[in-house]
Amino acid sequence: MSLCVVGSVALDAVKTPFGEVDEALGGSATFFSTAASFFTEVRLVAVVGDDFPPEHLAFLKSRGVNLDGLQRAPGRTFRWRGEYGYKLNEAKTLDTQLNVFASFRPTLPAAYRDAEFVFLANIDPDLQSDVLRQMTRPKFVACDTMNFWITGKRASLVKTLAQVDLVVINDGEARQLAGEANLVRAAAQILSWGPKILIIKRGEYGALMFNGKETFAAPAYPLENVFDPTGAGDSFAGGLMGYLSTQPTVTDAALRQAVIYGSVMASYNVEAFSLDRMRSLTDEAIAARYRDFQSLTAFEPLT
Amino acid sequence: MSLCVVGSVALDAVKTPFGEVDEALGGSATFFSTAASFFTEVRLVAVVGDDFPPEHLAFLKSRGVNLDGLQRAPGRTFRWRGEYGYKLNEAKTLDTQLNVFASFRPTLPAAYRDAEFVFLANIDPDLQSDVLRQMTRPKFVACDTMNFWITGKRASLVKTLAQVDLVVINDGEARQLAGEANLVRAAAQILSWGPKILIIKRGEYGALMFNGKETFAAPAYPLENVFDPTGAGDSFAGGLMGYLSTQPTVTDAALRQAVIYGSVMASYNVEAFSLDRMRSLTDEAIAARYRDFQSLTAFEPLT
Repeated sequence: MSLCVVGSVALDAVKTPFGEVDEALGGSATFFSTAASFFTEVRLVAVVGDDFPPEHLAFLKSRGVNLDGLQRAPGRTFRWRGEYGYKLNEAKTLDTQLNVFASFRPTLPAAYRDAEFVFLANIDPDLQSDVLRQMTRPKFVACDTMNFWITGKRASLVKTLAQVDLVVINDGEARQLAGEANLVRAAAQILSWGPKILIIKRGEYGALMFNGKETFAAPAYPLENVFDPTGAGDSFAGGLMGYLSTQPTVTDAALRQAVIYGSVMASYNVEAFSLDRMRSLTDEAIAARYRDFQSLTAFEPLT
Repeated sequence: MSLCVVGSVALDAVKTPFGEVDEALGGSATFFSTAASFFTEVRLVAVVGDDFPPEHLAFLKSRGVNLDGLQRAPGRTFRWRGEYGYKLNEAKTLDTQLNVFASFRPTLPAAYRDAEFVFLANIDPDLQSDVLRQMTRPKFVACDTMNFWITGKRASLVKTLAQVDLVVINDGEARQLAGEANLVRAAAQILSWGPKILIIKRGEYGALMFNGKETFAAPAYPLENVFDPTGAGDSFAGGLMGYLSTQPTVTDAALRQAVIYGSVMASYNVEAFSLDRMRSLTDEAIAARYRDFQSLTAFEPLT
C-alpha cells in the first residue's frame, strides 16, 4: 500500500572515532524513505536547495522513491554537522544550518493525498498537522518529534499527537514529553493524549512498544562495529512503516514484526557512514537479520 | 542439585525518592540465596557480627537457606548506606563500613564442599579462588566482581575468571574489565580469558548472554513502580543459578531460561525495599511473570 513521508533532506558532516564524511546524504526523510524502499514505494515530501547534488537524487530514484513532492528552493540545502565519541550513543551537534528548510511548507502533490500510510518525521508540529489536513483519509499515521518542539511548541505537538495512530520517539523525549521519569508511566501519559501506540527507541538498548494493553520489548542487534549512528532512528521508522504498509491490516502481530524490521534496518544503517550500507543491502540480508533477531530473543516457554 | 553461595550479608540504609529504610537486611549472599531459595536449597557462606538481628536469620531459615557456613565474628556486621535519585539507575554510596567483612575468610563446612553449583558473589578475587580450592568438584561455577577489584586486583581476578564457567557482571564492569567500549568486542575479550559464558547485566535495559557462538538478549520487565533497586543484580544471579541447579545439564536452552528466571526475580525484588517483596512472593507469581516475559518478547517468525 501507499506510504508517504514528510521530513528533511540534508547534507551531513559527521565525525566518529572511525572516520569522517562531509556533504553526505542525510535527513530524516532520506533515511526513512531509503529504509522503507526495501518494502514498498515511498512518496517523499521535503525541500532541497539549488546546490543539492544530482547523484543523491539519482540514488533515491534508484531506490524507487517518488520525488514528485521534493521541492527545490533557491538557496542552500539544510546542513547538519555532528560528532560522536567512542560510546557512539549520542551525537554532539556542532552546527545546524536550516537554510531552505527554515521556510519549508510541505505541499502534497495531488497524487500523494490518498496515501494510506503516513510518517510525519521530526518537523514543526503545526506543519505535521497541516500535512494531515492535506491527506484524503490516511489509514495509519505515525509521527516523530524532538526536545525542541516538546519545549517550544508543546500545545501544537499535543494537538498533533491526538491525530496520529503511532508515536515513535526516543526515551529521553518520552520522559520529557510526559514529565515522568518512569517509562511505563510516561507511556500511559502519552497514550492518554490520543495515539493508539507508542514506540520508545532506546538506541543500543532496543525499543519498547506500548498500546495500553500489552508491551513489546525488542533488543537492538548487538553489533561489533557501529560505524555511524546518524539516521538510526529514521531508518528504524522506515523499516517499521515500510513493512506495516505491506500488511492488509495493522494488527498487534504485524506491529511487533514491524518493530523487528525497523530494528533490522537501523542495525544495518549504523554499519557505515550516511546511507552507504543501504546501497549494497539485499532483501536476503534483511531476512537473515530478522532470523538473527529470532535466535537472539528465543527461549523455551513455560510448559 | 546443591547450590552454594559465598558473599556478603549486610545491614543496609537505603534512601529512594519513595522512602527510606535503615538496618535493613542486605548483602550479595542474602539477595542471591533468597532469590535462589524459590528453586532449590542454598548453602550460604558469609560473615555477620555479634549485632546481627536474629529475625534476619529466622527469615533466611524460613526460606530454607542453610546457614551452617554463616560465620559469626565479634564486632559489627557489614553496613552499607546508599541513595537513589528519581532515575533509580545508579546507587550513590554514602558510606561503607566493612566491619567484620573486612577480615572475612570464607571457610566451607565439610558438608558444603561437594556442592555442584557455586556462585562467587562480589568479594576479593583471591578469596574467590580460595573458595574453589575448598570445593570437591563443582559442576558449574559462576562469579561476579566489581570495579574495585578490576582496578585493584586485576591479575587475581583474571586468574579467577579462568576457573569459572560463567561471569555475571554489569555493562560498565564489562567495558572496564575488557578495556573496550563496544560490548560485543568486550564480551569476546572476557571469554578469551577462560569463562564459557558471560552475562552482562544492563539494569533497566535487561541482560545479554554471550557464549562465543550465539548471543541471547533478555529485556528487563518494564515496571511501573521501581521502589528500591538494591540487590537487583544478586537477585538476578540467584534466580539464574537457582533455576540452573534444578536442571540435569546446563544446556544453552537452560541458560536462556535461567536468564529469564533471573530477570523475573530481579523484577520482583525491586518492587519493595530490601527483601520485603520476597517475603510474600509465590511460585505462582514467578511462573506468571515468566509468562509475561514470553508475551513481552514474542513476535512471529519469518515464514
